[in-house]
Amino acid sequence: MPEAFFMSSKLQDQTSPRVVILGAGFAGLRLARKLAKKDFDVTLIDRNNFHQFQPLFYQVATAGLAPSSISFPVLKVLHKADNVRFRLAEVEELKLDSNSVKTSIGAFEFDYLVIATGADTNYFNNEEIQRNSFPMKSVQESLQLRNRILECMEDALIAPTEAEREALMNIVVVGGGPTGTEVSGALAEMRDYVLPLDYPELDFSRMGIHLLEGSPRLLGGMSDKASENSLRSLEDMGVQVHLSSIVERYDGERVIVKGGEEIRSKTLIWAAGVKGNVLPGLPQDKIIANARVKVDEVNRMQDSDSVFVIGDLAYMEEGKFERGHPQVAQVAIQQADKLAKNLIAINRGNSPSAFHYNDLGSMATIGRNRAVVDLPWIKFHGFPAWMFWLFVHLMAILGVKNRLFIFIEWMWRYFTYDQSLRILIKQKPPR
Amino acid sequence: MPEAFFMSSKLQDQTSPRVVILGAGFAGLRLARKLAKKDFDVTLIDRNNFHQFQPLFYQVATAGLAPSSISFPVLKVLHKADNVRFRLAEVEELKLDSNSVKTSIGAFEFDYLVIATGADTNYFNNEEIQRNSFPMKSVQESLQLRNRILECMEDALIAPTEAEREALMNIVVVGGGPTGTEVSGALAEMRDYVLPLDYPELDFSRMGIHLLEGSPRLLGGMSDKASENSLRSLEDMGVQVHLSSIVERYDGERVIVKGGEEIRSKTLIWAAGVKGNVLPGLPQDKIIANARVKVDEVNRMQDSDSVFVIGDLAYMEEGKFERGHPQVAQVAIQQADKLAKNLIAINRGNSPSAFHYNDLGSMATIGRNRAVVDLPWIKFHGFPAWMFWLFVHLMAILGVKNRLFIFIEWMWRYFTYDQSLRILIKQKPPR
Repeated sequence: MPEAFFMSSKLQDQTSPRVVILGAGFAGLRLARKLAKKDFDVTLIDRNNFHQFQPLFYQVATAGLAPSSISFPVLKVLHKADNVRFRLAEVEELKLDSNSVKTSIGAFEFDYLVIATGADTNYFNNEEIQRNSFPMKSVQESLQLRNRILECMEDALIAPTEAEREALMNIVVVGGGPTGTEVSGALAEMRDYVLPLDYPELDFSRMGIHLLEGSPRLLGGMSDKASENSLRSLEDMGVQVHLSSIVERYDGERVIVKGGEEIRSKTLIWAAGVKGNVLPGLPQDKIIANARVKVDEVNRMQDSDSVFVIGDLAYMEEGKFERGHPQVAQVAIQQADKLAKNLIAINRGNSPSAFHYNDLGSMATIGRNRAVVDLPWIKFHGFPAWMFWLFVHLMAILGVKNRLFIFIEWMWRYFTYDQSLRILIKQKPPR
Repeated sequence: MPEAFFMSSKLQDQTSPRVVILGAGFAGLRLARKLAKKDFDVTLIDRNNFHQFQPLFYQVATAGLAPSSISFPVLKVLHKADNVRFRLAEVEELKLDSNSVKTSIGAFEFDYLVIATGADTNYFNNEEIQRNSFPMKSVQESLQLRNRILECMEDALIAPTEAEREALMNIVVVGGGPTGTEVSGALAEMRDYVLPLDYPELDFSRMGIHLLEGSPRLLGGMSDKASENSLRSLEDMGVQVHLSSIVERYDGERVIVKGGEEIRSKTLIWAAGVKGNVLPGLPQDKIIANARVKVDEVNRMQDSDSVFVIGDLAYMEEGKFERGHPQVAQVAIQQADKLAKNLIAINRGNSPSAFHYNDLGSMATIGRNRAVVDLPWIKFHGFPAWMFWLFVHLMAILGVKNRLFIFIEWMWRYFTYDQSLRILIKQKPPR
């Protein structure tokens, strides 16, 4: 590390154990904050200089929120953390034998390594689908999808045939988990309230929004009641839900469903699965199905003293979570909190204690006044669930100003039925 | 035009004269709005689907405002304008002989053509500077500059030598007009209040912000008093102002000033001049210096009955403006208003009347509590000028929500000294 060139008082005590954290998502950033002002020399590395609030990507994709409202500069979070440094870099390879990480800006040595690189879209090795579909696992991808939807409407205006116009207007969403369900609902509202005003020349009764789910029910991770309610809500809103439907092929025009059904659409949103972001240098025998990394009860990688994995990438069998925890923000945050305590304990010569997930419940929003909430002691839906969803997400957003902006956007949309971020900003290629 | 495919009630009366407007800037969008619900069949064409509020580009570039706050979807402006259609397209060629415009999505025929394509950066044929410098004439370019500034700070952290670190941190602005003056001031505030918190490892007392102006004074279009006040303010804020300094060469590393001075900087912002966006097919003999198009007193292109030019591109000699009007929003807006009236008059068989620019004054902001304002009856500076600038710009912004968001951003920044949009969002290349 080019330590010698820095002028700061930060990080001068070279006797503290060096913790390198890879990834500034819910898990990595939380851990860095918890280790602030503790006796560690912490380096947080991410390929973006901002934290992304994943649960609201779908609102960026449907022109409801600005990218900046759900992005938060990592450096700002760390202003008062004198022992934490952030580096904008791509990790190239883990060198676990020599306790170092090779990155695009040089190597970083560690005493403890925490891998929190999360998960990315899983196409299950279908390259044709990967090439032709739109994922939604980053702010950039959400923006790309927003641009695509707007471009398709513009192209529909000048489509030479009725069939081509329908293919441009139709949208197919694959995957009936929270992401797929939420984006389908948001698209239906866009079609019903916003697009007809923008494009009076197009007939939006012919725009189909299709949600395809491989299993027999939506929101597989939630209660039966939530599944049924979300299905009914989506159908009320005019989303065509296809259950037990597996997509076999997609050439960019035609979605071929197993069994022979065919849907014409120029836009396929793929939200059917995730896989861990494994890094070169991770031992192959530690990687299990869907590219998750097996860890022990303190999130330590097996056969290692100094390498920990937290968040979506980690696979831990615990109590009723015998096939691993759900890959959600709550697990990431709780694992980060626990690991911070454990690192402090280890550093003091004490033993770390086992992680136990406290399942606070789960929820999904479907549209205006429509949501489903499963809490440990109660399950509810409709307007109260929707209000609850809004409140919880607003409180979870980092930054008072972002919270204020999102609140205003939501109130604005509620009363005006308008999503006013329908702007197609294409960046020039970087120099 | 593929008229037959559209379903809308819009634009059915094919007997109304067809007006094609090129460009949705201050001039073009204003004209389209003024022709709404009048007896014209109007097509507005732009390469972006949003109107850009140019006077605040510099705040996007310095991480003070989100791009969406100063962009407004054109389609939304036209919701109630049944006789106005918007098309997202690139103009490829004017075919004035056949009264049509060739675009990327087909040809548009017109009875009246209004060219309002504005102006772009003028490098005065210096290709080396064009290749290596950053312009600021669109939302996209402003974002690109924001990304560049943030990247340079990241690179400075790992620069191998002191000289390279200084080149990465230094910023040179060329052009002492409103844009150059405003961006220099904003950069100085970023250096003093924001960047040291983000990058405690860097020594910001060594970051130079240089403003180079070819003439002997800043804000050449304004009063001597405004020039002097802005110079004093910038120097107070630690901007190194170089008057009568002409940049000769810039290789991306070293700015060579005429006379031999040399400044090392990896970021050069070029705001030294503009030239009209002339379109292929415009008669060469109508194009004068700096690529403006000569028009008569009703903004009609010479030797033409049906082609009008308004805004930055138009060159009209009028009264004391014997070398043309200043290329500012006020002229564009007033010309659009006048042309709307004149087109309605012509359509009714009456004569158009001459345009007269009502100069309402000009202003520039330099920083917190610092601005200069020249009104026809009074010139002032400091805090009252700054408040006046804020008020006028806020009122000029399109859209109540954008206005609210910008107001909050400004209040936030005023009280916290923070610009929280320091996020480096790079889009993937479009598919």
